Amino acid sequence: MRIMVQKFGGTSVADMDRLKMVRGKVKRALDDGYKVVVVLSARAGKTNKLLDLVARWSPEADLSEVDSLLSTGEQASVNLFSIMLNDSGIKARSVLGWQIPIVTNATFGSARILSIDGDHLRKMLETCDVLAVAGFQGVTEDGRITTLGRGGSDTSAVALAAALGSCECEIYTDVDGVYTTDPNLCSSARKMDRVSYDEMLEMASMGAKVLQIRSVEFAKKYNVPVHVRSTFNDNPGTMVVQEDETMEAVLVSGIAYDKDQALISLTGVPDQPGTSAALFGPLAKEKIVVDMIIQTASRNGHADMAFTVPRKSLEKAVAIMENHHNILHNEGIETSSRVAKVSIIGVGMRNHTGVAARAFEALSRENINILMISTSEIKISCLIDEKYTELAVSTLHDAFGLGDK
Amino acid sequence: MRIMVQKFGGTSVADMDRLKMVRGKVKRALDDGYKVVVVLSARAGKTNKLLDLVARWSPEADLSEVDSLLSTGEQASVNLFSIMLNDSGIKARSVLGWQIPIVTNATFGSARILSIDGDHLRKMLETCDVLAVAGFQGVTEDGRITTLGRGGSDTSAVALAAALGSCECEIYTDVDGVYTTDPNLCSSARKMDRVSYDEMLEMASMGAKVLQIRSVEFAKKYNVPVHVRSTFNDNPGTMVVQEDETMEAVLVSGIAYDKDQALISLTGVPDQPGTSAALFGPLAKEKIVVDMIIQTASRNGHADMAFTVPRKSLEKAVAIMENHHNILHNEGIETSSRVAKVSIIGVGMRNHTGVAARAFEALSRENINILMISTSEIKISCLIDEKYTELAVSTLHDAFGLGDK
Repeated sequence: MRIMVQKFGGTSVADMDRLKMVRGKVKRALDDGYKVVVVLSARAGKTNKLLDLVARWSPEADLSEVDSLLSTGEQASVNLFSIMLNDSGIKARSVLGWQIPIVTNATFGSARILSIDGDHLRKMLETCDVLAVAGFQGVTEDGRITTLGRGGSDTSAVALAAALGSCECEIYTDVDGVYTTDPNLCSSARKMDRVSYDEMLEMASMGAKVLQIRSVEFAKKYNVPVHVRSTFNDNPGTMVVQEDETMEAVLVSGIAYDKDQALISLTGVPDQPGTSAALFGPLAKEKIVVDMIIQTASRNGHADMAFTVPRKSLEKAVAIMENHHNILHNEGIETSSRVAKVSIIGVGMRNHTGVAARAFEALSRENINILMISTSEIKISCLIDEKYTELAVSTLHDAFGLGDK
Repeated sequence: MRIMVQKFGGTSVADMDRLKMVRGKVKRALDDGYKVVVVLSARAGKTNKLLDLVARWSPEADLSEVDSLLSTGEQASVNLFSIMLNDSGIKARSVLGWQIPIVTNATFGSARILSIDGDHLRKMLETCDVLAVAGFQGVTEDGRITTLGRGGSDTSAVALAAALGSCECEIYTDVDGVYTTDPNLCSSARKMDRVSYDEMLEMASMGAKVLQIRSVEFAKKYNVPVHVRSTFNDNPGTMVVQEDETMEAVLVSGIAYDKDQALISLTGVPDQPGTSAALFGPLAKEKIVVDMIIQTASRNGHADMAFTVPRKSLEKAVAIMENHHNILHNEGIETSSRVAKVSIIGVGMRNHTGVAARAFEALSRENINILMISTSEIKISCLIDEKYTELAVSTLHDAFGLGDK
């Protein structure tokens, strides 16, 4: 039995016309000899509407009830789609998270998948050609409905593909695939044919919205090749796959950026053990995500520290710093929310030097000042003044020849 | 553990204000020392809206998918209500049909309950004070969602009460209880304090819309006393209970009527074995419900037959009769949709004579002609011209002194 997993998001199930397009994709796979597992999201806007309703009812609503409520959105999608498929002579049935089951832990609102009964799915596929599976949802061991968090349907699809074993996984989106950078920012942006899981992870976390980051982690862990492609045409998209030798030949794969950055600089912090813990402990406690961090070398027993947080957390972070002044003993605080992070990503960096130098040189030629730098094995990120974001992205894209095929 | 089952319909869960009234009823039971199982319907209109949607998608939609889709309505109700209860400090959780489970057969759209795990419910009540149970829904043994048919939430409530054993069951409606007859038709109609299951069954099938007929059958089978009462006040309503000796003292309990009647008369039907089968077989095959039937004594080997069907089935029934003319050999067909059935109901009839005579006499005094008569152990029904319905109901109501306390 050859099985194809296909995932469609909220805009693809918005109405009957859109679902007919989905049916077209399913039919093509059936014609190619596959049995199809279609993972659907809730109708676009439905989940937000339900969350708004809950917010009006109770500011701190019981998350297990919220999850059960939200899960009705995907349930309606798969029921209606199954009705449509059967109506056009395709043997299909809906499958909810608990019916498989997709067992998760009990972290309501952002549950993690523990196991999926792939054998049960295969058995269901013996009596019908298409399973319309509700994305985003699972069930705890004691039978309560959970949801996987935002974009969780991507994760559902990849996890189902992993559980079914040796099956293909297509994630349909409203773009043609993964681009070397944001085409809205840089006209020479080019669709990639292949990208590695690690590169995709860096891109996703940088704000490339194509695939949910957890789904990529899942794909990497179980080595599921994911084909990201468009709902609106039949062009091949981008294969997200395990890194291979040909990939390493490419130095840099893409340029990502993230404008959701705010900078906090502390001057004259005593340079002594425990300062960092005193600084970042309270932020972590308040669930503020700290991204880039730098610390200058010590001068007279004092150092300057700077770090970035999401813009919405800036005010809260500053308040926490001020509350902990008696521990930090810093001389001053400066903040800016007009900063952006630009990142160069590529598995090729692992085996090559000089990428950073080439990047800095390119930015310098355009007089773009670098406020902070952070690096990983396959990524170099630079914090810059927000107004230079577009210029920096284009400059780096050109500097590494990403627009050329 | 003292347990109270309370059921609220679609208008009671329509919005937050209505649900606050429901919360008030739940609180009162909690204050009285009960743990509460609240059975909720979908928001008024929600089920019809979903059915309209399905009708647009597919004229012959797969009923298992429709059931799953419909079940989301009750699911949303219990999730939102649990959120509200927890928000006001009441420990509650939602429970869906499959989570109990309420196991049904696989007759999607009108499934029958096979079993309910009452122990599981009791166990859940150990850790919280209120269970908000989704009415109308169950699950097959192989894990597919079913619905119990229109008004199924009444049946859910009674069945849950039966499964929990020795617990009270309150069905909340928008009226104060069960009346001796329709108060809109007869100003002296009086709320009954008690009514037997059998009387209630006759009244429900006669068009008294207070309780779904299957829920009364269930209550009778498991001897669950059902308290029918108003959402809008705290007055005691009507207890629907097993017949007892005091009840038999009352000759007649109520007068019901049903305007959804159409009369078909066949003249000159050959009086020979098999005629009735030839007549009613084809109607049953087309799922046309035949209510009253009379046959005149034979005259020269021919008889006249008359029967009633729901008005919407009249045209179809006549067409069937005409198609089977070669078997029936009847001389003519006459029809009328301007007829109504008026019924006198009371368990006291079992042990008393003269009820029929008193009824016919009363109708005759008002010059109301009786077209057909049918009787059961606890009921006498008369088919009359529709325009006399109100007069007949009032006349019979007075004749048996039902307005007097």
